[in-house]
Amino acid sequence: MNGKLYGVGLGPGDPELMTLKAARLIGAADVVAYPSLEGGASFARAIAAGVIPEGAEEIAISIPMSVKREPAQAAYDAGAADLAACLRAGKNVVVLCEGDPFFYGSFMYLFSRLSDEFDVEVVPGVTSVTACAAALRSPLSARNEVLTIIPGPMEETAMEQRIAAAQAVAVMKVGRHLPKIRRVLNRLGLMEHAGYVERATLPEQKAMPLAEAPETAPYFSMILVTKGEDPWL
Amino acid sequence: MNGKLYGVGLGPGDPELMTLKAARLIGAADVVAYPSLEGGASFARAIAAGVIPEGAEEIAISIPMSVKREPAQAAYDAGAADLAACLRAGKNVVVLCEGDPFFYGSFMYLFSRLSDEFDVEVVPGVTSVTACAAALRSPLSARNEVLTIIPGPMEETAMEQRIAAAQAVAVMKVGRHLPKIRRVLNRLGLMEHAGYVERATLPEQKAMPLAEAPETAPYFSMILVTKGEDPWL
Ligand SMILES: C[S@@+](CC[C@H](N)C(=O)[O-])C[C@H]1O[C@@H](n2cnc3c(N)ncnc32)[C@H](O)[C@@H]1O
Ligand SMILES: C[S@@+](CC[C@H](N)C(=O)[O-])C[C@H]1O[C@@H](n2cnc3c(N)ncnc32)[C@H](O)[C@@H]1O
Repeated sequence: MNGKLYGVGLGPGDPELMTLKAARLIGAADVVAYPSLEGGASFARAIAAGVIPEGAEEIAISIPMSVKREPAQAAYDAGAADLAACLRAGKNVVVLCEGDPFFYGSFMYLFSRLSDEFDVEVVPGVTSVTACAAALRSPLSARNEVLTIIPGPMEETAMEQRIAAAQAVAVMKVGRHLPKIRRVLNRLGLMEHAGYVERATLPEQKAMPLAEAPETAPYFSMILVTKGEDPWL
Repeated sequence: MNGKLYGVGLGPGDPELMTLKAARLIGAADVVAYPSLEGGASFARAIAAGVIPEGAEEIAISIPMSVKREPAQAAYDAGAADLAACLRAGKNVVVLCEGDPFFYGSFMYLFSRLSDEFDVEVVPGVTSVTACAAALRSPLSARNEVLTIIPGPMEETAMEQRIAAAQAVAVMKVGRHLPKIRRVLNRLGLMEHAGYVERATLPEQKAMPLAEAPETAPYFSMILVTKGEDPWL
């Protein structure tokens, strides 16, 4: 009989923000797999390190840092083939996913390749967005507000239009897009309403008003904007 | 010395989707508090039932089901006063929050009343949105997509404009707004792209294409729409 594939969310970084289910499934896994950027260290593996069982087989799926379609597709094809071999051998495979697997996560590329042939379960996790709101001590979205989640790489004019039309906003994947996002928020008069968070829930966490944020941001950073005044506060 | 206040996310319903940190904090609480709609059963308490310690004091904060501002404000004022008394007596208080405390949650109304005087920590939880995506076996948002989260009570024309302009969409608080949301998605030609989930991660969970959904929806239901074709799939 084939093994089962699990895509398991690990939360934003603090290992204690793993769910009980994630800890149980990882602890019982035959094979633990995780993406690794160009074969480097894996953030997902670091979060789960304390619960990976001693005897588990580990598979690092090396993903090229390319914005092009083909190299990434080839990497997911190869990774999916490795996992399929384990599953056909009857092993249960847990794929470690930082945050939630289906929230801007790469697990979907393995899911799309393997879910027709194998039994796959997705275990949701705490996303970085709500972790960043907790770090800023500022509610993300209230009552009947619309919340818009925007990826940092978006083109400047399009981003400005989106944020202008939005109520509560989270901008993900800030990194080298920080100067552009600052320009947009300045033009919209929203700097006073914006918070900056990097490495939420990790010992190195930074959380502050965007106006006081560093000049450069790492990839694991986010900007939250709340325009609204909740009438029930 | 004053006690500490924790707003603890419990996830969408399955007690195993609580985080390790939530389970630890609840298990060590002097006082466990939770909102209860008009004094009825509390969903948050039901999720946490297995980890609430025997000797813990429990405070149910009864919230009136009103769309008006004043009765709700009065209820949060009274609840906050009860918690403040416990905190001043040096007790640690854990407020149980379904999903994540700062994601459309009522914890913010206690937070705004108590965070000036007391030490407050917000512990993020798994939101219903990613739990519903997992239940539908369909990624919520990919790569550089914008994700828009819309509350079901929104007025019909405004909702249609928001969804027309959006890429990936989650509509929360469906309940009695289901017929309106169906009309909007029909007019936009998006019925084929919409999924329906109720009571995600609970034994009674339903997850199906919206076209096959029941005529009436409970409050704990959601509609997810994904228009995009991810180029990397
Ligand atoms: C490819 S997305 C993955 C999101 C993840 N699946 C989740 O559920 O949060 C990566 C982006 O998530 C955000 N992110 C992830 N972890 C974070 C953290 N601990 N602190 C701040 N931002 C984080 C950053 O914006 C980063 O660029
Ligand atoms: C006031 S909001 C609270 C959201 C919660 N704080 C969270 O993080 O998910 C209530 C809405 O969340 C959604 N919801 C919460 N739990 C759910 C579940 N188990 N299944 C489906 N929808 C759920 C429904 O749309 C419901 O109307």
